[in-house]
Amino acid sequence: MAESATPIDQAPDLATILAARERIRSFVRRTPVLSSPALDALCGARLVFKCESLQEIGAFKARGASNAVLSLSDAEAARGVVTHSSGNHGAALAWAAARRGIPAWVVMPSTAAAVKQQAVRQFGATVRHSDPGVDSREKVCAAVQAETGATLIHPYNDWRVIAGQGTAALELLEDAPELDAVIAPVGGGGLVSGTAIAAKSLAPSIKVYGAEPAGADDAFQSLRAGRIVPQTDPRTIADGLRSSLGDRTFAVIRTRVDAIATASEEAIVRAMRLLWERLRLVIEPSGAVPLACLLENKLPVERLRVGIILSGGNVDLDRLPWQDATA
Amino acid sequence: MAESATPIDQAPDLATILAARERIRSFVRRTPVLSSPALDALCGARLVFKCESLQEIGAFKARGASNAVLSLSDAEAARGVVTHSSGNHGAALAWAAARRGIPAWVVMPSTAAAVKQQAVRQFGATVRHSDPGVDSREKVCAAVQAETGATLIHPYNDWRVIAGQGTAALELLEDAPELDAVIAPVGGGGLVSGTAIAAKSLAPSIKVYGAEPAGADDAFQSLRAGRIVPQTDPRTIADGLRSSLGDRTFAVIRTRVDAIATASEEAIVRAMRLLWERLRLVIEPSGAVPLACLLENKLPVERLRVGIILSGGNVDLDRLPWQDATA
Repeated sequence: MAESATPIDQAPDLATILAARERIRSFVRRTPVLSSPALDALCGARLVFKCESLQEIGAFKARGASNAVLSLSDAEAARGVVTHSSGNHGAALAWAAARRGIPAWVVMPSTAAAVKQQAVRQFGATVRHSDPGVDSREKVCAAVQAETGATLIHPYNDWRVIAGQGTAALELLEDAPELDAVIAPVGGGGLVSGTAIAAKSLAPSIKVYGAEPAGADDAFQSLRAGRIVPQTDPRTIADGLRSSLGDRTFAVIRTRVDAIATASEEAIVRAMRLLWERLRLVIEPSGAVPLACLLENKLPVERLRVGIILSGGNVDLDRLPWQDATA
Repeated sequence: MAESATPIDQAPDLATILAARERIRSFVRRTPVLSSPALDALCGARLVFKCESLQEIGAFKARGASNAVLSLSDAEAARGVVTHSSGNHGAALAWAAARRGIPAWVVMPSTAAAVKQQAVRQFGATVRHSDPGVDSREKVCAAVQAETGATLIHPYNDWRVIAGQGTAALELLEDAPELDAVIAPVGGGGLVSGTAIAAKSLAPSIKVYGAEPAGADDAFQSLRAGRIVPQTDPRTIADGLRSSLGDRTFAVIRTRVDAIATASEEAIVRAMRLLWERLRLVIEPSGAVPLACLLENKLPVERLRVGIILSGGNVDLDRLPWQDATA
């Protein structure tokens, strides 16, 4: 298994992403592509939506985690995997490890919501608590590695993960080969990086855009500054997009992503509700950010054919943002 | 077009439903089939879900309405179509008529919610108001027919509509050919009738079940009595399932449907929420009734492979049943 695995020390190219797609084929779903004339009319463009919310774990993160887990040698795999994430990557890694039958440890703050800890434990993974800060999180991860020999699978700053995330764009372009542009949300940048490599390899003239909350616009700032500007004090409902970029994702974004757009919180909530109403999909706030950017006319896609990656659908159904007093 | 159209005076067979599928191919979507290991574990069966909520209009009704509209001769079509429905069939017929470029009239009580009237008007159809009762509704329909020459397309007691609804089961069995049973919700019985004809023609040993709210169990009562027991005073959140059977749907159900199960309101709400959480699909209460029957162990499907038709996803997102004080 190790020989054909995604290299961990170099950026993936199209061949690497195609190989990742074969590797993860039995683990992940080929998600459907949907469209909505009503949303087209609202945005003045022809939109197709790649529904990664319909992965078994409800997010594209299944792809990167599967590729990383399946790229391990049998000896590495036997020692398990570890990551830090209280979001979809933690659950995805726990799930992918369970599918391969290997142990997994997920580090999250002891303050993480019980439902997020449960999302990891349901797949048999072990939750290890850290303090909220990055330092504590990395210290606990390192301790698990030292203790168990587990391989660290970073949520986004890992070429195996980035190659896996790129497989969504491969499928999207197979189902909708005539796209002029693709938009993906940007948190740590794994999805938009994989998307940019895959899409521009298949269709060199295609535009690839990242979409961020204005309240967590570190990728926008980083692209403008020409260096990684860390995200401090993110203020957004899009809880999957609060991370800072990594050196690998920034390297891809600065060379392959045409622009980063930002959306207001109001537009994110409106876009989320429109997706529920018009596509009848449960989409989390992070997944609604690309459409939110279009609702606010932040990207030059008028009358173009645009693919949007709906990244995930894990939402607290007791508390919907359009029902909050603040929304 | 008339020669190859679905006959209006005889029950469809497999050939008729296959022809309907070809006829409506450019109008409707081939919806995906999803599964969830978590729901399998809860129900003790292997479930696959046919996601008709992902039709453009959010319901399987697109199929029957398209088949009826496309079965009209050019001369008939030019005079338009009329129906009575404040639910998904009204919107579906308006949409199908707009796609063919012909006029449509939809009769609904003047008390119907504004959002339901809007769902019809958005496709350019004309809303005609009646009083709430069946008599007034039929009188207004007849007046529109007399005035315009429009063809009445009944929501379910029409062989063209039943043939169209059967195309969902054709696709389901192509994607999941090994099913032991299929379950469809029962309102007027158009979906379960088309499903039973299609499924039992393709797989004679398959079981076909109908699922009803206990608070609107007229199909259950009718099957037991051997005659149509009209639904009076329905009490259920599943607003798509409050109708009585028609003579055509009852004729199919009594000969082709193996059993009708009923679900409590509590189970319907629980099933609806589980579908949102586990499949990340917006499913309306009516669409959750088959799963609700399984949660209450009302059907003999233990360890079997079961197809469930998720009939629709049109929901008022401001008011979710698990947030109501009564739920």
